[in-house]
Amino acid sequence: MMRTAHGLVQTPVFMPVGTLATVKAMTPEELKELGAGIILSNIYHLYLRPGVEVVSALGGLHQFMNWSGGILTDSGGYQIFSLASLRKITEEGVHFRSHLDGSSHFLTPEKVVELQLAMGADIMVCLDECPGYPAPEEEVHRAADLTLRWAKRCLEARRDKAAPLFAVVQGGMLPELRREQAQAFRELNFDGYCLGGLSVGEDKDTMLAMVEATTPELPENKPRYLMGVGTPEDLVEAVARGVDMFDCVLPTRNGRNGMAFTAAGKVVVKNAVYARDPRPLEENCGCYTCRHYSRAYLRHLYLSREILCYRLLTLHNLYYYLHLMADIRQAVAAGRFAAFRREFYDKREGGNTRG
Amino acid sequence: MMRTAHGLVQTPVFMPVGTLATVKAMTPEELKELGAGIILSNIYHLYLRPGVEVVSALGGLHQFMNWSGGILTDSGGYQIFSLASLRKITEEGVHFRSHLDGSSHFLTPEKVVELQLAMGADIMVCLDECPGYPAPEEEVHRAADLTLRWAKRCLEARRDKAAPLFAVVQGGMLPELRREQAQAFRELNFDGYCLGGLSVGEDKDTMLAMVEATTPELPENKPRYLMGVGTPEDLVEAVARGVDMFDCVLPTRNGRNGMAFTAAGKVVVKNAVYARDPRPLEENCGCYTCRHYSRAYLRHLYLSREILCYRLLTLHNLYYYLHLMADIRQAVAAGRFAAFRREFYDKREGGNTRG
Repeated sequence: MMRTAHGLVQTPVFMPVGTLATVKAMTPEELKELGAGIILSNIYHLYLRPGVEVVSALGGLHQFMNWSGGILTDSGGYQIFSLASLRKITEEGVHFRSHLDGSSHFLTPEKVVELQLAMGADIMVCLDECPGYPAPEEEVHRAADLTLRWAKRCLEARRDKAAPLFAVVQGGMLPELRREQAQAFRELNFDGYCLGGLSVGEDKDTMLAMVEATTPELPENKPRYLMGVGTPEDLVEAVARGVDMFDCVLPTRNGRNGMAFTAAGKVVVKNAVYARDPRPLEENCGCYTCRHYSRAYLRHLYLSREILCYRLLTLHNLYYYLHLMADIRQAVAAGRFAAFRREFYDKREGGNTRG
Repeated sequence: MMRTAHGLVQTPVFMPVGTLATVKAMTPEELKELGAGIILSNIYHLYLRPGVEVVSALGGLHQFMNWSGGILTDSGGYQIFSLASLRKITEEGVHFRSHLDGSSHFLTPEKVVELQLAMGADIMVCLDECPGYPAPEEEVHRAADLTLRWAKRCLEARRDKAAPLFAVVQGGMLPELRREQAQAFRELNFDGYCLGGLSVGEDKDTMLAMVEATTPELPENKPRYLMGVGTPEDLVEAVARGVDMFDCVLPTRNGRNGMAFTAAGKVVVKNAVYARDPRPLEENCGCYTCRHYSRAYLRHLYLSREILCYRLLTLHNLYYYLHLMADIRQAVAAGRFAAFRREFYDKREGGNTRG
């Protein structure tokens, strides 16, 4: 079943990822000027370094990093399961060792809510268990059920509703399980719902099938947030299936690796073909980078490993992503998302159609 | 003999170094806002990569790098003698191999003027031979004399006086030779005079003695430019000895290495003592970094190897250097440089007196 984008609160947003209390290479003022309203901060990273007590003593995350916009803190679940070592999961919580120094830690659902509150989060996320991919079916079931029980504890732990709390719906690549989980979470009346455990190595069709299985079971008047996704095509396709929120490191990480996103597709600035190319990354792009610099110059900066190159490409890519989402919002609001989606693919070079 | 600062054109300026067509980590707009009027671009680096033809085809260095201020291009001499390999010097010019790819090149005094003109330089510098340090006396004499002959050829090569041309006075650590060279150069009526071959490993007293030997022999109504210098103390002491212009990588390089310059001395941000320090790098500093970020936050960014840290420290250090020079200019203009110099040392922590 394909849902078109017409949810009651479907105003899709993209959140730049501020892993270490800054969106890599950017100042908060630059992000604000680009139109970013919310950034994502990873609790796992900040919990390990500099530590919650430090952030707290310095006035909370907003003051620490000089960001007056919204901050969504994730629960740390994804990083615990992708970065930390010697994980041991119990009903109570998760034991793990820091990937930085090997130190031992124990986090519970209650503790991660407490950490996010201490950081000054504007939107919190429940602790979840993200199973590996691929994973045995029974393992996926166990992790999804534990995530549901942990989510209930997070809800309890958030006394006086200090900040909105989002749940994470797991369920691996099992559409029926995803559907059941979404229904069970819906009952608990969270402020928003994350689709977790996707974009972990599965193919695009599988990911989109999981999205399709989940979103119809989640309330239309609450944000539905696809975590860690994705390419421009992924965003368009996920919105088409009812997703409202995204975060992803692609625009910043790929920017630092010399890759620019444009309406026509990717521009890899180191390519020799750009050595004397006076054109901007993208014709008619209004970003600072495209208004002032040629592909030839960006290539030179990239080959010289200049920090300015990482800045300029990061800036362009965030501009591209945030404008893409603004265009999507407009199209959804005007009831012409289907046309927008066709035009989006028409602009891609070589007529590539999806993903 | 100690000269105090009262030359006719003594309005000391500091030029940030834009080795690879950008001042590392900074945009041109940021530099302009900091008050930088001139930046230095290294011809050696740009000649090898991206190449003069590329810069030229893209409209010259100003347009290539989006910088509307002044550009002083050095001659490449210093880098040829510090970075390149298999150097062979003849009367005609210098053969060398690129430190990037081992390719062979031959540069003559005429060629480096041509390169600088093609780049669109606002101020050009003559090709010089910078002897090693330490070096045998006869070697220092030979290099100084060759530099003088090459300077005459540069002057000839600059048909129609397309841009101001500065000579480089060499002479190693031999004050008498420096004095003679300065006198000989003075006769040739250059637009400005560089003091080259200093800050190459000699101690501070020796460097300042060489400055003292040179500046009195150079015209007071032409800029006297001490290349590649230096610390805040070096700047103050060199101005006291009649120097007008400086360039140095210290504010940017040390910034990227986590070190901040302040009126009280250095702040090494990684130090554990700053882990919870809510103060800015420097109290009452008006720079963007100090207005918005704590030492604790900068330490966190540094330990996390965040690009933003390099940006924020570079910005602060350039602000410090450019404001130091602005304060020096004001003090010189008001005839109170001696008092300024005393106050400068009074503010240093632990009462350190010089260098």
